[in-house]
Amino acid sequence: MTRLVYISGEMVPEHEAKISIFDSAIMVADTVTESTRTFHKTPFKLDEHIARLYRSMKLTHINPQMTPEQLKKITLDVLAANLSNYEDHQDCWIVHNISRGLSVPGADPTKQLGAATVMIFTQLMDLRSWANFYREGCHAVTPMSRMVPSQSLDPRIKNRSRLPYTMAEMEVKLVDPLAQSVILDLDGHVAENKGGNIFAVINGVLKTPTTVNCLAGVSRATALELAQKLGIPTQETVLLPYDLATADEVFFTSTPYCIMPATKFNGGVVGDGKIGPVTKRLLAAWSELVGIDIVQQALAQIN
Amino acid sequence: MTRLVYISGEMVPEHEAKISIFDSAIMVADTVTESTRTFHKTPFKLDEHIARLYRSMKLTHINPQMTPEQLKKITLDVLAANLSNYEDHQDCWIVHNISRGLSVPGADPTKQLGAATVMIFTQLMDLRSWANFYREGCHAVTPMSRMVPSQSLDPRIKNRSRLPYTMAEMEVKLVDPLAQSVILDLDGHVAENKGGNIFAVINGVLKTPTTVNCLAGVSRATALELAQKLGIPTQETVLLPYDLATADEVFFTSTPYCIMPATKFNGGVVGDGKIGPVTKRLLAAWSELVGIDIVQQALAQIN
Amino acid sequence: MTRLVYISGEMVPEHEAKISIFDSAIMVADTVTESTRTFHKTPFKLDEHIARLYRSMKLTHINPQMTPEQLKKITLDVLAANLSNYEDHQDCWIVHNISRGLSVPGADPTKQLGAATVMIFTQLMDLRSWANFYREGCHAVTPMSRMVPSQSLDPRIKNRSRLPYTMAEMEVKLVDPLAQSVILDLDGHVAENKGGNIFAVINGVLKTPTTVNCLAGVSRATALELAQKLGIPTQETVLLPYDLATADEVFFTSTPYCIMPATKFNGGVVGDGKIGPVTKRLLAAWSELVGIDIVQQALAQIN
Amino acid sequence: MTRLVYISGEMVPEHEAKISIFDSAIMVADTVTESTRTFHKTPFKLDEHIARLYRSMKLTHINPQMTPEQLKKITLDVLAANLSNYEDHQDCWIVHNISRGLSVPGADPTKQLGAATVMIFTQLMDLRSWANFYREGCHAVTPMSRMVPSQSLDPRIKNRSRLPYTMAEMEVKLVDPLAQSVILDLDGHVAENKGGNIFAVINGVLKTPTTVNCLAGVSRATALELAQKLGIPTQETVLLPYDLATADEVFFTSTPYCIMPATKFNGGVVGDGKIGPVTKRLLAAWSELVGIDIVQQALAQIN
Amino acid sequence: MTRLVYISGEMVPEHEAKISIFDSAIMVADTVTESTRTFHKTPFKLDEHIARLYRSMKLTHINPQMTPEQLKKITLDVLAANLSNYEDHQDCWIVHNISRGLSVPGADPTKQLGAATVMIFTQLMDLRSWANFYREGCHAVTPMSRMVPSQSLDPRIKNRSRLPYTMAEMEVKLVDPLAQSVILDLDGHVAENKGGNIFAVINGVLKTPTTVNCLAGVSRATALELAQKLGIPTQETVLLPYDLATADEVFFTSTPYCIMPATKFNGGVVGDGKIGPVTKRLLAAWSELVGIDIVQQALAQIN
Amino acid sequence: MTRLVYISGEMVPEHEAKISIFDSAIMVADTVTESTRTFHKTPFKLDEHIARLYRSMKLTHINPQMTPEQLKKITLDVLAANLSNYEDHQDCWIVHNISRGLSVPGADPTKQLGAATVMIFTQLMDLRSWANFYREGCHAVTPMSRMVPSQSLDPRIKNRSRLPYTMAEMEVKLVDPLAQSVILDLDGHVAENKGGNIFAVINGVLKTPTTVNCLAGVSRATALELAQKLGIPTQETVLLPYDLATADEVFFTSTPYCIMPATKFNGGVVGDGKIGPVTKRLLAAWSELVGIDIVQQALAQIN
Repeated sequence: MTRLVYISGEMVPEHEAKISIFDSAIMVADTVTESTRTFHKTPFKLDEHIARLYRSMKLTHINPQMTPEQLKKITLDVLAANLSNYEDHQDCWIVHNISRGLSVPGADPTKQLGAATVMIFTQLMDLRSWANFYREGCHAVTPMSRMVPSQSLDPRIKNRSRLPYTMAEMEVKLVDPLAQSVILDLDGHVAENKGGNIFAVINGVLKTPTTVNCLAGVSRATALELAQKLGIPTQETVLLPYDLATADEVFFTSTPYCIMPATKFNGGVVGDGKIGPVTKRLLAAWSELVGIDIVQQALAQIN
Repeated sequence: MTRLVYISGEMVPEHEAKISIFDSAIMVADTVTESTRTFHKTPFKLDEHIARLYRSMKLTHINPQMTPEQLKKITLDVLAANLSNYEDHQDCWIVHNISRGLSVPGADPTKQLGAATVMIFTQLMDLRSWANFYREGCHAVTPMSRMVPSQSLDPRIKNRSRLPYTMAEMEVKLVDPLAQSVILDLDGHVAENKGGNIFAVINGVLKTPTTVNCLAGVSRATALELAQKLGIPTQETVLLPYDLATADEVFFTSTPYCIMPATKFNGGVVGDGKIGPVTKRLLAAWSELVGIDIVQQALAQIN
Repeated sequence: MTRLVYISGEMVPEHEAKISIFDSAIMVADTVTESTRTFHKTPFKLDEHIARLYRSMKLTHINPQMTPEQLKKITLDVLAANLSNYEDHQDCWIVHNISRGLSVPGADPTKQLGAATVMIFTQLMDLRSWANFYREGCHAVTPMSRMVPSQSLDPRIKNRSRLPYTMAEMEVKLVDPLAQSVILDLDGHVAENKGGNIFAVINGVLKTPTTVNCLAGVSRATALELAQKLGIPTQETVLLPYDLATADEVFFTSTPYCIMPATKFNGGVVGDGKIGPVTKRLLAAWSELVGIDIVQQALAQIN
Repeated sequence: MTRLVYISGEMVPEHEAKISIFDSAIMVADTVTESTRTFHKTPFKLDEHIARLYRSMKLTHINPQMTPEQLKKITLDVLAANLSNYEDHQDCWIVHNISRGLSVPGADPTKQLGAATVMIFTQLMDLRSWANFYREGCHAVTPMSRMVPSQSLDPRIKNRSRLPYTMAEMEVKLVDPLAQSVILDLDGHVAENKGGNIFAVINGVLKTPTTVNCLAGVSRATALELAQKLGIPTQETVLLPYDLATADEVFFTSTPYCIMPATKFNGGVVGDGKIGPVTKRLLAAWSELVGIDIVQQALAQIN
Repeated sequence: MTRLVYISGEMVPEHEAKISIFDSAIMVADTVTESTRTFHKTPFKLDEHIARLYRSMKLTHINPQMTPEQLKKITLDVLAANLSNYEDHQDCWIVHNISRGLSVPGADPTKQLGAATVMIFTQLMDLRSWANFYREGCHAVTPMSRMVPSQSLDPRIKNRSRLPYTMAEMEVKLVDPLAQSVILDLDGHVAENKGGNIFAVINGVLKTPTTVNCLAGVSRATALELAQKLGIPTQETVLLPYDLATADEVFFTSTPYCIMPATKFNGGVVGDGKIGPVTKRLLAAWSELVGIDIVQQALAQIN
Repeated sequence: MTRLVYISGEMVPEHEAKISIFDSAIMVADTVTESTRTFHKTPFKLDEHIARLYRSMKLTHINPQMTPEQLKKITLDVLAANLSNYEDHQDCWIVHNISRGLSVPGADPTKQLGAATVMIFTQLMDLRSWANFYREGCHAVTPMSRMVPSQSLDPRIKNRSRLPYTMAEMEVKLVDPLAQSVILDLDGHVAENKGGNIFAVINGVLKTPTTVNCLAGVSRATALELAQKLGIPTQETVLLPYDLATADEVFFTSTPYCIMPATKFNGGVVGDGKIGPVTKRLLAAWSELVGIDIVQQALAQIN
């Protein structure tokens, strides 16, 4: 079956899922966004994602012309319309991209000239690029470029003006083609990955940066909640490269992979170079929470 | 006649000028860009714009799969195909947007998976929103947000990840719905406008920030060249809000309007509150250079 | 009755309350200060204000040539001498300004050449400019200028070199003539208002910046104490404009108004645009603490 | 004869030169200022001082309710009225302090409620604290506190909110009771003295910081002009403590002393520890310019 | 008896304890280090020191070619071989310096060309320079230079590239020849002493900077542990000069002296100018912990 | 013949060239340094190197107890004593390392307890690690760590506390084992290489950073002088990674290799990927200046 995509009120087949090149999504990347994933075809924390999307729209003054409830309903409709595209053991992304709509060169870019462009689509949760990291851990690397600071653009406004992240990611690929970025802020503090948050286990405490310099990730929150449930002490604090280099365990959190262990950092091993016990417990707890063996689901894609 | 737009090898009518919502232009705003304008239907400094576009692509590792010469030829073809849309006294924009092409959530964003998406179009040079500023000057206002610093993303890479600029512009519109932004960098130094450069005339010297914190604008370069030709001393230096507040004259430069005088700055008058002699001489010299009375062309649109 | 003012040992009538234009208060603003208010004519937390004043004098090496106890006694005498100026339902400020005394151009400004100049006066607690904000909330706005950083002058030294605050306040008045400033520090973190501290209620937690970048306000401490008494969790932390824009409630604290709700922030509504329940509970608790309906006292002045 | 002082329209004897303690000069140090000096009883560069004063008022929105010409006339009248107080060989300061006028606690501090308070007075040019430095040079010392940055308050707005300067000066007096401050900016670059500018002679070039981080001193401009007249190359540039420590010569410029040589810097000698030839030439040229032996006039006061 | 020193596998008499001037210890200060002290000739927290040393080697990629256990054994052997040099009431340092070994100008400095140079020696714990501070407190002074920031070199990598610390220490000696440095970081926050950590007692809470800008001192950790045992609340937080100036008590911690009270700060008294009760309790608890009266041991050296 | 090394007054054979492990060179890296090279066995700009060495000693308060003239004589003696070690076509380094001498743990590190330790030696100018770069250019790479800022330690004090440089160099070796570092300062501006300065040719102008953030290299000065002689315009200015990425040519300067072309920068080609004409002209001019074909001398070592 052809994938169906929602664009501003219409459900269209994937190959027709196009927008005008004059849309502000393309012209000035005035697009806020969310990426939710399903477990067993059920969206995970969809309410939190939609709430954050509305916070992003509040800050950017994009008016979607619908309520969160309406958006949720449409989202579930898009999912329902596409469910048959995914096999039993498969899950999918649900992506929201909402732009300010039509843009005209020379016109006031702060004005929403008409309706927002609301794009919602599902996508097979393809975990092949990360799956092996569940077994061997990934290589976390710091780029030379620094995070856009909050006083330029708060990273909690989840948006699609993402070139700085892509550039940072390119830099770390110079070190290792499979490297995952650990972007530092202007003070050299660990901020975030191009699409995820960063955690370290240090002397038994699970630490992650505060949201002063990074996205307030839904997966980040889930990891903290699970740790608290498991009795693992947690701390939101400043982390420096030294902390990651000497940590017992390091991992990333993000919507698609939930938790991705890192066993190398800037060319050195993390801990003993193996995926650590706290990481494993959290992954297991997450799997239990969602009723899917997260690791097995991913590994099945590459075996 | 319908406007014809070039998209990745094809010339299509405007209403069909669409790209996939899975394009990286929309997904991650990996899009470099140029906006050239015509005078008498002839592109102004097209070579400089194309050269800068290739520098932007070098930095972002976007591969357009054509040479600058090929791109120039296509550009001129697009212009030629649309010339009949514009009346004798009208001019147009020629906009280039080139993205990394198809994007897939979860795939490595640094990889160009296939062909770049090359979008080229013309657009009526509609100067109505600025025209009155040639007579009365605009109100330049500093937003509270700060420029993305060069160590996060160099502003000389002209790109479409522009949300920080839009946010800054929204802030200044709180002060005055017609305000034009004077964005400061992290040190509080004057950087740039959301789409232009900033100049001040101080004790007879034409000053503008160095390109450490702003786009190396083609119009900026033109203004400096004209000043030198006219014997007006120029200086690329640090400017602070104090400098604009006490300057004799202030103006912006940008492709569409060339030179836009500012007669108010943060609520106070600039100089004597009238458009100054250096600004006028530069505008006249620019008009002479291109064989069009720039001011009259704009004013004709609102009278 | 004429208001009586204390100046360096003497009680003088208001119209004679003058000091030499050669005083360092005027020449270099070497003046530390406190503003206490009364409730039912009784000074509120006078001991805390006097203790902070002595800390400010320790840092600035101003020698008042009296003990805190002596200063307190004089303060109460000034109040007693002026009580008959205020009606039953009225309250007043008690202001301390202590400068380093006589200044001579060219002399070493760090030397206290003689006695400090001690100025103490009361002033009708005129709440008319804030009263309506208890009903509708105020508009909180961030200026483009940044707080003087602590390594230039620690804001906990409460002093009268206040031009940077006045300038910031002027900037926000460009947005709204009734705007109240939310000054950011050099990192873009929320610091303080020109004369008060800033709080946000976020997911049920009452948050306010640490005193790294702001005055350790007596009203700030009172708000935190009341919250703790009411079982409202509190947190001293970094706040960013994003936090205020997405907070459920925002308010200022300061000596005259105690708590001033903000229902707009940078042009957008805070929460649902109405004064929130935590703000109301804190105001009620404060009223109970001091035995005055704070809101009614203010509203009575404008009705 | 008693010194006569001008206060807001009246000429009053010195001992009556008082202003209300409710003036904004005292309440919030909203006071802009200039200090001019005379040579042979003639004001030096009075026009430049008055022009800068009006720039300061433009930025602070203080309205003196008179034109520069009127202010100049009053200034000269004040000087004339006091000339008989100074002996033939003496000179004097002419100090302008202009505040926003009456201030009321709780009222909007940005509003000028009535007339500005204009204070103008002369003062014997007492050079005793600096005179010996013409013979032996002074000790220049860097404090640990840093300049108020321009994005908090531009130092070119010459104003009386000077506590940060006094604090810095106190710090250097810990090193040497006669030390003169060399305040650094937040980057550690040399900014200015608490009341003067800083110069270094390095390999024959006279260098001084740009005005990005310091007052655009009238004496600073004079020193640069004299150097250019004498064929000494000049450069406005970044200076670091290393530059002063290894310079051939270091000196300060300020209105009272014109040029004050420094022969020690942070405990080490500057150059060979003696006042250098460029310093001497500039002092001589300045003396010639004003028709007074500046050094002898000062030394006469201590011999 | 002659002191015996361990150098890379050999135990040599002190006067033969030399290394090649081509060693990287001298050529590029690629040397990590620890300084442990004994109490009653028993090393205090040697395991913690060795663990930190291995963390430093991990970050600097120095390979000691032995395990922590082997290094510990050698360390204890060095101590045993030298014990007879110290009298009953005496204690000693145990110093580890491990460099990357041979260096050649022009060769890649990141390559360890051969064996690391392992230097281990004891040294009489000579406390004479600090002993009097146990009675009268020391003078803590802030230098004008700022800490090397963590993004240049993390201070938790305990190493011998210490010129910045020596320079800062020289600066504070300008204020007082016995001054102890309180180095600030680039934000003006209290970081560390040239060889110790800094604590303040404020309203009954023992506060010290987090390790974002300072060494994670073993003595620092001990002080925090002892405080917790004694029921003294502790907080790792930002401290500013204002905090030290207004603190009730201030002290340093470091291996040799454990706790060194400061009774002056930047020329002013700390608290009442006497060593405070919390400092005394911690010193007593430490003495109890190690079975030595720390203060008496030191005082005995100067009486 | 055995190489003879000068150590504090004595000429000793290389294998005896050792210093005490208690020397401050090892204990705290209080060592200033110079590296001169010979051409045709004649030292190049030895006077400049010695002058800079004395400036470094002035700042660090190391007292060599000899005059520059005496040091120069000893230097030439060391060279003369070793000349027979080098073949006709060979040249050598002359390295000066001067430390503060003996150090004792716990003693005041700022006091020079006795004689400085003066180490002078020659070393074969082994260019094998760089030689191929004259043919193919090297790969210049930016590390993620940032330069020690000038307000922590001015890089113009040429010293041996070099761990930050070694760490940066290790980071770039992760990208390419032969990479040469382009270290950025805290603002992200190009500063220097771990042992050299950085130049770019941009539109025909030879640009290099000012010495605000880097060593004032003797080779840097030579390159600028040669360019001026050749009529190549030069500019000392801010350079950003963007400038190097888009430059026509990039090269490093340093004592051993004089000029080392870079043909790759952060994984991309510089210019057309070949060594450029300006680089070649400068190398040729340098060869002419010193009477040696610099490139051939190096290439001979690897062929």
